[in-house]
Amino acid sequence: MSILVLKFGGTSVASVELIESAAKIVKSEYEAGNNLVVVVSAMSGATNILIDHVNKINYDDDSEYDVVVSSGEQVTAGLMSICLNKLGVPSRSWMGWQIPIITSDSHRNAAIKRVIPNAILKNFDDKKVGVVAGFQGISSDGRITTIGRGGSDNTAVYIAAALNAERCDIYTDVDGVYTSDPKMTKNVKRLDKVSYEEMIEMASQGAKVLQTASVESAMKHDVDVNVRSTFNPKDMGTKISNDIESDNQAVTGVAYSKDEAKITLIDVEDKPGVAAEIFNKLAESSVNVDMIVQNNFIERKMTNLTFTVPMIELERSIKLLNDLKQKINFSKVLEEKNLSKVSIIGSGMRNQPGIAAKMFDCLSKNNINIEVISTSEIKISVLINREKTEKAVSELHSTFNLDKI
Amino acid sequence: MSILVLKFGGTSVASVELIESAAKIVKSEYEAGNNLVVVVSAMSGATNILIDHVNKINYDDDSEYDVVVSSGEQVTAGLMSICLNKLGVPSRSWMGWQIPIITSDSHRNAAIKRVIPNAILKNFDDKKVGVVAGFQGISSDGRITTIGRGGSDNTAVYIAAALNAERCDIYTDVDGVYTSDPKMTKNVKRLDKVSYEEMIEMASQGAKVLQTASVESAMKHDVDVNVRSTFNPKDMGTKISNDIESDNQAVTGVAYSKDEAKITLIDVEDKPGVAAEIFNKLAESSVNVDMIVQNNFIERKMTNLTFTVPMIELERSIKLLNDLKQKINFSKVLEEKNLSKVSIIGSGMRNQPGIAAKMFDCLSKNNINIEVISTSEIKISVLINREKTEKAVSELHSTFNLDKI
Repeated sequence: MSILVLKFGGTSVASVELIESAAKIVKSEYEAGNNLVVVVSAMSGATNILIDHVNKINYDDDSEYDVVVSSGEQVTAGLMSICLNKLGVPSRSWMGWQIPIITSDSHRNAAIKRVIPNAILKNFDDKKVGVVAGFQGISSDGRITTIGRGGSDNTAVYIAAALNAERCDIYTDVDGVYTSDPKMTKNVKRLDKVSYEEMIEMASQGAKVLQTASVESAMKHDVDVNVRSTFNPKDMGTKISNDIESDNQAVTGVAYSKDEAKITLIDVEDKPGVAAEIFNKLAESSVNVDMIVQNNFIERKMTNLTFTVPMIELERSIKLLNDLKQKINFSKVLEEKNLSKVSIIGSGMRNQPGIAAKMFDCLSKNNINIEVISTSEIKISVLINREKTEKAVSELHSTFNLDKI
Repeated sequence: MSILVLKFGGTSVASVELIESAAKIVKSEYEAGNNLVVVVSAMSGATNILIDHVNKINYDDDSEYDVVVSSGEQVTAGLMSICLNKLGVPSRSWMGWQIPIITSDSHRNAAIKRVIPNAILKNFDDKKVGVVAGFQGISSDGRITTIGRGGSDNTAVYIAAALNAERCDIYTDVDGVYTSDPKMTKNVKRLDKVSYEEMIEMASQGAKVLQTASVESAMKHDVDVNVRSTFNPKDMGTKISNDIESDNQAVTGVAYSKDEAKITLIDVEDKPGVAAEIFNKLAESSVNVDMIVQNNFIERKMTNLTFTVPMIELERSIKLLNDLKQKINFSKVLEEKNLSKVSIIGSGMRNQPGIAAKMFDCLSKNNINIEVISTSEIKISVLINREKTEKAVSELHSTFNLDKI
């Protein structure tokens, strides 16, 4: 008998009626003979109401924030369990502290340390479905913790790992992971399978289907995840796992993020510790630096340092850098606004040479100038003029045959 | 150093702003040097939203009902604790399972069995206020329970008993217990003190300030309770305790309930077990029988049996009684609608003869006919025509000098 973990996100449990629909999906998996754990998010909107209450007080208290906000998942877990019992599927709810799901003490952003699966496993002997409140756990001193926004995906993955489940199905309002953003290019295709690494690169690029941290957890614990649609439960969605054949498909997705800004420090003194000094300063002020490129001019003992930050953090970053000018010698700061980062992603590019050349060739043929290039093992990103984003995404999508998957 | 328990009801914590006001009351008791536990209800309206969700599913599941509904008090406890910390009053929240408050397994209507006060007492060493989510506990098998609607009063009393607190202050939207309903008679007076028994008789009669079960708990554990106004916290309100001087005041309150109906069974066979049979039948169908009067005609071996039920249960009761007619011999069932029960209450009447006569005399002088009389040690109730309720309450109020307290 297989163990499956089914996770339903906020939009899939936004009303009592939707919870009843989700319960019917659970019922059909139950009747197929599986042992089930269902992980639920808060009803869509509920968490925001709770956060608004806390924000109104205007005082930082992370441990009590967790007490207030975790109640949203408690409500859904109880309601889902009632719906299942009504449908003749015996079930009971489990709060984080009841299982227990033991986390670190970092309230509001706790990390799951251990899931003790014994009690839930014992319930399987009685053919009982366990309904678990997502997003929450218990600290070593018995306080309620939450594992960060969107963390119910992570709860599901950790429980699947602890139960050695065959699969973790993430039910959401889309039917899987696409080759690119349907808003940017017409011929996007749903991917039937994608590797953990590809998914991580895509998620952080804007393919916001699954929280990146939960994909990393799935990779770490080798849990097969399927992203499926609550509204089309017969479809298996996109499978995310290690076990991906390359299909001769070097590139599996095109991602982008708009509103990037580029900063270049000209004639930075080229000695150890300078880059660390600069990026520490920015990190201390929570500026998210992304692409970093350095061109050395060895003969001059000088270098130009280029990096990108989100548009909204540009002004603040320039100010921080000017504050550093006395400490670190550089001649001037250049800035450039209204840029986009466009990336191609694919595990297959590890084994196929010429992918980068093909990408640059495609962009050049379309008169799209590349400002900055950065690469990882399975991703190539370029910084381009923001107005060309749509053109770039769409041309890269067809160049790499993603409309023919 | 005194230990005080402060309880805030739903209308006193209906918004974040009101929770902040309540926190200021806590702060002043804290600064006066007391060790404090604060018990909170759900924000007014929150519980109803949760119950509506459950009712929409339309399936009885008491243990999951408790999971859903108990979340309301969790939210208030977290918010209250944040407010206190913001005001510089160190505090932390406690859920029922964290303390723990151990209850019976009767979900939705569990009885508190034991409060283990050690953890909260330990917090007093650090000058920390404990904020307790009312209305909830934990069963012997680790499930969340609720102790019945309005049960936060009971949580407060049990915690006061476990901590051996000097006092339990119930903060609500009225400033205490009155001699009668201000809607019925103009010259009502606030009572400064009232005995447990008087309070119990008044509460069940409609003076809905405190849940009757919580007064019974206070009496059982000898906890002094003060009913106080959140909106006028300097006033000590009404003290409810054992320690009440009689003040030569035989009667301390006039209570009433409208919408009573009277049922009389004529010529019931007078043999053992007949009354039990009748009232068991009604109890099984959850009909609340109140006053019961029996007139025996010994020579005929027959009796007339009269009792009252709420108006809305009259029709159902008559049907149930007619079903019994074959089993129990009686000649017919009479019914009378639109009656009121009016009661005078007072511990002092135990020692003062003539109170009943004075009551009947007052009613007779005002041409108010008495249908049924029933008495307890500290209460005399009469059933009268509903249209005369106001007159009766008001005349009795002045006859027993309640407007001169």
